[in-house]
Amino acid sequence: MTTASIVLDRCAELDRFTATPPSLERVYLSPEHASANAVTARWLAEAGLEPWQDAAGNQWGRREGPSSERPALVLGSHLDTVPDAGSFDGMLGVTMAIAVAERLRDTALPFALEVVGFSDEEGTRFGKALLGSQAVAGTWEPEWWDLRDRDGVTLHQAFRDFGLDPRRVGEAARRRGSMLGYLEAHIEQGPWLEAEDRSLGYVTSIAGARRFRISVVGEARHAGGTPYSRRRDALVGAAEAITLIERRARATGDRGCIATVGRIEAQPGAINVIPGRTDFSLDLRASTDAERDDMWAVLRLEMEELCARRGLRLEVRETHHAPAVECAAWLQEAVQAGIRSTGDDDPVGLWSPAGHDAMAIGLTTDVGMLFLRCHDGISHHPEEDVRALDVAAGLDALTAAVLEVAARYADGRTS
Amino acid sequence: MTTASIVLDRCAELDRFTATPPSLERVYLSPEHASANAVTARWLAEAGLEPWQDAAGNQWGRREGPSSERPALVLGSHLDTVPDAGSFDGMLGVTMAIAVAERLRDTALPFALEVVGFSDEEGTRFGKALLGSQAVAGTWEPEWWDLRDRDGVTLHQAFRDFGLDPRRVGEAARRRGSMLGYLEAHIEQGPWLEAEDRSLGYVTSIAGARRFRISVVGEARHAGGTPYSRRRDALVGAAEAITLIERRARATGDRGCIATVGRIEAQPGAINVIPGRTDFSLDLRASTDAERDDMWAVLRLEMEELCARRGLRLEVRETHHAPAVECAAWLQEAVQAGIRSTGDDDPVGLWSPAGHDAMAIGLTTDVGMLFLRCHDGISHHPEEDVRALDVAAGLDALTAAVLEVAARYADGRTS
Repeated sequence: MTTASIVLDRCAELDRFTATPPSLERVYLSPEHASANAVTARWLAEAGLEPWQDAAGNQWGRREGPSSERPALVLGSHLDTVPDAGSFDGMLGVTMAIAVAERLRDTALPFALEVVGFSDEEGTRFGKALLGSQAVAGTWEPEWWDLRDRDGVTLHQAFRDFGLDPRRVGEAARRRGSMLGYLEAHIEQGPWLEAEDRSLGYVTSIAGARRFRISVVGEARHAGGTPYSRRRDALVGAAEAITLIERRARATGDRGCIATVGRIEAQPGAINVIPGRTDFSLDLRASTDAERDDMWAVLRLEMEELCARRGLRLEVRETHHAPAVECAAWLQEAVQAGIRSTGDDDPVGLWSPAGHDAMAIGLTTDVGMLFLRCHDGISHHPEEDVRALDVAAGLDALTAAVLEVAARYADGRTS
Repeated sequence: MTTASIVLDRCAELDRFTATPPSLERVYLSPEHASANAVTARWLAEAGLEPWQDAAGNQWGRREGPSSERPALVLGSHLDTVPDAGSFDGMLGVTMAIAVAERLRDTALPFALEVVGFSDEEGTRFGKALLGSQAVAGTWEPEWWDLRDRDGVTLHQAFRDFGLDPRRVGEAARRRGSMLGYLEAHIEQGPWLEAEDRSLGYVTSIAGARRFRISVVGEARHAGGTPYSRRRDALVGAAEAITLIERRARATGDRGCIATVGRIEAQPGAINVIPGRTDFSLDLRASTDAERDDMWAVLRLEMEELCARRGLRLEVRETHHAPAVECAAWLQEAVQAGIRSTGDDDPVGLWSPAGHDAMAIGLTTDVGMLFLRCHDGISHHPEEDVRALDVAAGLDALTAAVLEVAARYADGRTS
């Protein structure tokens, strides 16, 4: 039986495919992405699944059901990372999915079983998240082709450099009905399971993030010679905006709005020049879309005001807008049954402030998620960690959840 | 007679040597630096000066005095730029110096006349200013060899790539007594001459800047899953520090302290990761060293406090520390005489909040400076501009100042 230690070994093996050793960074359409897909394809084949890479660079594996007409239950997560990443965000869900497929190798299932390693969930390279799963959901937008990475390479060019044909990206889209549902295991990336001393939890919904590229435009001038009365310092304006964003979001409380500025660039970027332009990112989440959108309206208005006060101009471009996605009740129940099988009689439900591939896939099929406790809520950081016993429990729960889905499928209780 | 239009044409010709066309950026030890030196050498030769490039990449030209033992009066400024620069900061002083040498070609002088185009005044590439003139002043520090540019190239490696031998940098240092003095023409980079409707002004002193690399260290975490109570967001801390810096410096008034944050970088720099580290630059100036140092003490203390409040760590490294430099009284008088020769009977004296090569050279010889009115005080920006009539007046004044120095030298009034 494939054990937790094999899953953890495979996560460690994936760590080798990084653009920035010894730290981990594996972005969409990079050489490391190709290497991670290749080793994942090998594990999939070893688990008895037929591997293929789709037209958007996602890595799949499939074993057929009783006939090729049967829909597939898809298990998986993503293989890309943020910069200076931990080893488990995404990769744990993929390696656990492979392990569950191995465990069920000799168990008859009434549907096809697929495993997917999505190619871009984080959006690290092109500033737009969920590219891999959106291709699968059939929601790919032609305007994305012009997105550029930090080196100015367009998404269109990156596709070709990777050996993919941009004209064929539509082939990655799955026909509605070809999937029975999507189940994803993932580290919680938050503190609540640890606070409740639980290994596992089921997810009720995934909050939708909105992301913006915000630019404050002033005037570049000599640092020494320009008195304050004539300064229109774009970085000071941006700094004031960033402190404002934190103050407003923090005021909504611990389970309220969460606003993060992760990137900033001041131009021209010289020590002795007043910045004439500062760009920064904003990632905004809340438990409901309404709460999140109300917060954005407040932030935008107040940023406009502070820029006007300083003779600066505010420019805003929305780069990502995802609605909250509810996990399907019947898949929540299947995951709960899986957790109960591990001895937790009263599974806890959580909503996820973090985005997941399940959000994009949720537009085309039902989704469910299993959360695993992670150390101190740390994620997107090298110290991201999971306990082996929790992974073992997660494998048992996910396997049991698949069997519960099989039982429900046999009874027609899959909606 | 070499006219203002030739000087302006030469500034435009130097614009061609840029790493970022159509915008201007010419940094130390770059291919553009080599090209700018080459064309400057040609102009120097055409003006009757013997050109050479010194061991630190500064471009020189010299005509001998009555004997080779006579010291040199040095005219000049710098040829490097900030990113997205204007055409005149530095370059105008070099091309004016060449023009003055041309005008005086057939005039006997009791000393040697030299022109210099310094190779690095702005510090754009290695974050350390005045590298070219510090080599000449003999104040080069061995630890600078490990400074790195944005691509990780060390100063040591850049020397070799440029064709210079790092072991020989000491040869750029001028023997004390080999220079009679240094006269530099420069755009004001401030609003005061324009406000007083004057073409020219003489400089009384150059305020010394201190520059710091300030790092705020927190913890990188997932943007979505980490509640505010557990966030140690380095960028929000840095943003608060930047607004604090502006508030404190602005409070000292228009001719008080000037503090500029021109660079900032948040790490890991992903949209959905709380920054674990943010580095920014600080350039601090004031009319006196004491006022500047008092401001720094206040800023440091308050930044320490705000970091402690947020569970962040503050790291500070001083990258540049220049004392204020007084222009020599006799050279101030020579420049005043030059300005009077243009019809301004009551020349105005200004202190310079901007740094200049004269600060470094001032450690080894007497210095004087002539300021030219610039449009709207704009500098370090493509819209940096000068009026042709002011350049014409400046050429007359600088030529007359050299002749005044000659008269004083003959009388022994050069101290």
